[in-house]
Amino acid sequence: MHVFYTPDINSDQYILNEEESRHCSKVLRLNVNDIIHLIDGKGGLYQAQINDVSKKHVHLQIITKQFEYGKRNHHLHIAIAPTKNIDRLEWFLEKATEIGIDEITPIICDRSERKIVKEERLEKVITSAVKQSLTAYHPKLNEAVSYTDFLKQNFLGEKLIAHCMDGEKSYINQQVDIHQSYLILIGPEGDFSPIELDLALHNGYKPVTLGNTRLRTETAALAACFEVNYINR
Amino acid sequence: MHVFYTPDINSDQYILNEEESRHCSKVLRLNVNDIIHLIDGKGGLYQAQINDVSKKHVHLQIITKQFEYGKRNHHLHIAIAPTKNIDRLEWFLEKATEIGIDEITPIICDRSERKIVKEERLEKVITSAVKQSLTAYHPKLNEAVSYTDFLKQNFLGEKLIAHCMDGEKSYINQQVDIHQSYLILIGPEGDFSPIELDLALHNGYKPVTLGNTRLRTETAALAACFEVNYINR
Repeated sequence: MHVFYTPDINSDQYILNEEESRHCSKVLRLNVNDIIHLIDGKGGLYQAQINDVSKKHVHLQIITKQFEYGKRNHHLHIAIAPTKNIDRLEWFLEKATEIGIDEITPIICDRSERKIVKEERLEKVITSAVKQSLTAYHPKLNEAVSYTDFLKQNFLGEKLIAHCMDGEKSYINQQVDIHQSYLILIGPEGDFSPIELDLALHNGYKPVTLGNTRLRTETAALAACFEVNYINR
Repeated sequence: MHVFYTPDINSDQYILNEEESRHCSKVLRLNVNDIIHLIDGKGGLYQAQINDVSKKHVHLQIITKQFEYGKRNHHLHIAIAPTKNIDRLEWFLEKATEIGIDEITPIICDRSERKIVKEERLEKVITSAVKQSLTAYHPKLNEAVSYTDFLKQNFLGEKLIAHCMDGEKSYINQQVDIHQSYLILIGPEGDFSPIELDLALHNGYKPVTLGNTRLRTETAALAACFEVNYINR
């Protein structure tokens, strides 16, 4: 099953861009009358037939449309401090997309060794996971923002912060209702600073634990992602 | 907190091997009277003080011992078809070790593109995750074995097979009791063959689903690992 990401689809005809066309005709060796699948990233899953293969473009005729494909029953937003080794963040984005996530924001914290992320590269990782896992909804990647600025943003829903410091903590499932909007903060290697934790608590974030073992940043973020999807399934 | 893996520890004195000694004295720049932690992989967590640093060896005096550190309340064995790209299997081993797993067996299936794995390299990945996540129990990595031979092995506990074919399936938590021994089969890219599935079902394996999205092999294995740990926590 060949899947292409076509966010700008808006009629029964579609022309793949040069890169996708090359992949379709040269790499996959697909030709006229072959059937492929399209995903628009907004819940639309399409079946399309190849009408014409020119040098640079593959022309498609949409055969079937399915809307709200794999619609989720909750909204999960994870704000994560980018890992020092960017591969680990990219790995998280791939896995979270497979398992189910709606929104990701890289947050720059006091102890973040990495202060800059290339959103374009991360966007590509998410899109390829979207195609691979046949997720009709494309997770939204926000621009990196400082931790303090992020906490100033309004959010209506369950706000949680996962940290490793002492103090009272519960499991996510003990803190939240199902079918809600969730926002979970995941800190950098070395955890949030005590000041950052206080700031979150004063902003209505509930402290949660993800278990007794020491988890890397990207593992903690994925654990939170698994748990929220689990309690909502 | 500096952690060293010392499976052969058996007294109140211990001498780090050359490699670990170099890491301890040259890389970490630790010296006499500094405190480090040791893990024996069998549940033992030790606090040790450096009492001599020679050219090739660091001599330690054990100060405190803790047994059954982080003892688990269940036993999880995942048999997984090695991924074509070995990084993906190594990634699974690292993450599963962080989250909690007891035993892993690479199984070679009909559709396995990779027929050979280097256990030594995989062992290293597990050990470094053990140290990083402070897991006093070292997961056991078994030698790769063919799928059919693996199914001939005896196992006392809950036997599950995760597959993507049609047919009746339940979630893991609907199929098992808590605090048990669990064995879960995870297939290769392209899934198990129908013959392999039948063979498992005839051998008492229960079919399970890990959700509605298409998961890569290593993601499916980690999802199973998360779920079993979640229902047992």
